[in-house]
Amino acid sequence: MFKFLEEEPFSPIKHSYEVEAILHREKSKFQDIAVIENRFFGKMLLLDGIVQITERDEFFYHEMLTHVLMHAHPNPKRVIVIGGGDGGIVREVLKHKTVEKVYFVEIDESVITVSRRFFPDVAQAIDDPRVEIKVMDGAEFVKNSTGIDLVIVDSTDVIGFARTLFTKEFFDSVKNSMTENGMFVTHTESLHLHKDIVIEMQEKLMKTFPVVDLYTAAIATYPGNWWAFAVGSLKLTPRECRRPFTIETKFYDDEIHTQCFLTKKFYDKLLKRQLKW
Amino acid sequence: MFKFLEEEPFSPIKHSYEVEAILHREKSKFQDIAVIENRFFGKMLLLDGIVQITERDEFFYHEMLTHVLMHAHPNPKRVIVIGGGDGGIVREVLKHKTVEKVYFVEIDESVITVSRRFFPDVAQAIDDPRVEIKVMDGAEFVKNSTGIDLVIVDSTDVIGFARTLFTKEFFDSVKNSMTENGMFVTHTESLHLHKDIVIEMQEKLMKTFPVVDLYTAAIATYPGNWWAFAVGSLKLTPRECRRPFTIETKFYDDEIHTQCFLTKKFYDKLLKRQLKW
Repeated sequence: MFKFLEEEPFSPIKHSYEVEAILHREKSKFQDIAVIENRFFGKMLLLDGIVQITERDEFFYHEMLTHVLMHAHPNPKRVIVIGGGDGGIVREVLKHKTVEKVYFVEIDESVITVSRRFFPDVAQAIDDPRVEIKVMDGAEFVKNSTGIDLVIVDSTDVIGFARTLFTKEFFDSVKNSMTENGMFVTHTESLHLHKDIVIEMQEKLMKTFPVVDLYTAAIATYPGNWWAFAVGSLKLTPRECRRPFTIETKFYDDEIHTQCFLTKKFYDKLLKRQLKW
Repeated sequence: MFKFLEEEPFSPIKHSYEVEAILHREKSKFQDIAVIENRFFGKMLLLDGIVQITERDEFFYHEMLTHVLMHAHPNPKRVIVIGGGDGGIVREVLKHKTVEKVYFVEIDESVITVSRRFFPDVAQAIDDPRVEIKVMDGAEFVKNSTGIDLVIVDSTDVIGFARTLFTKEFFDSVKNSMTENGMFVTHTESLHLHKDIVIEMQEKLMKTFPVVDLYTAAIATYPGNWWAFAVGSLKLTPRECRRPFTIETKFYDDEIHTQCFLTKKFYDKLLKRQLKW
């Protein structure tokens, strides 16, 4: 007999999945954490009832959030990863030999623990000696950081306790922590369902960063799917792939790097609020 | 009080929508037809319980299924539209002044009637004098057609009674109906959820057409969302935009034309079945 998991997301489309088994459920200090088993997607991690990753397709999101900037930056050595307690972003960052240090800043230690236990492939790089785990608020950590090449935010939705990661104050701290070619990326919801949030975030980033841009990827398990990734950069455009593509990936490559950014006309219409949907 | 519409689609992700009102419901000779009202998407057309179009976002699918080939073909005059009883594809085709004749072949007349009544904006071009409505099986119609520049299939899912539109026999009929630069396009489900179907359809098209290709668009209301459009062409690559972009659209433009096709490496890996998900 199957049960259905029903998401009540920040979205007018509700996603439901068959639940083969509930493997884990806990109330952490910050949120409801659940791991379920689904026939198609394998194990799925949910925070407050919203799907964060699935075994089958986590690489789309993790690769696209990580490798675009890791290839746009000429020499990324020191990286801050905020959120992403499952370890997926850390795993992708450490595929790059330039990396000397990853500050892995997750506010909810229970997510790390759950990922180690149920998603060992995703969490595989957490214990790498280059990784320093910081269990704390990412915005607080960045305030006191310096010499950072790249900051990657892998948070839950813009609403909720992650909202400090979408403020001008936070973006300014990120900028101040950075070396001269510093770059920043965060997800900003679905272009289909939350276009206004996507635009507002671009405008907010422009108040802090000289170069701001936007790329997208299709993520099946995030409602609205057409996921927007917002970039702030101190100097260099993220559209250019400045380093040879030599790592192993399942989706990202140097051609997709170029393709994933909004076209010029489309980006222009978006920012002028000329896109009607 | 809200009800939820729960789709039981050909998909491991079930989409649900709030139903403000059920505006229409009938069993036609072929299928269950429903029109509901949703706060976010406006009116929604469902066939056998699966969302076909919504007022809010129908243009993504209709524009992307129509305008890529309408711009790749140097001079599209005579077009067959199979399915798409709502009239959305016909509306888009008739934006092009080159068009002299559209054969609009829909097996279920009730869909046309429902669209005229509930989706007048989508159905607006059905009575244009260049349109000839044929209420019949599209595969049968194509068998006896000649002098066709473009064939566009806007069917329901690959399963069900639309399956005759995904056979080698049908593709051969399409080819035989065409003028020298003839082109064909059909949707082939989601790259996320039905990658194997996408590949099989490319392979099947290659047995008929010298040039076969694939582009995608993100469609929020189709589960899996990352929607694949398969092209067969007698001679010309569909990647080139051969006619000036002068029509009014909400999403498609000449830059998106170029961007929407799979990159070479990605397409190559797909066909070699090297993509693992």
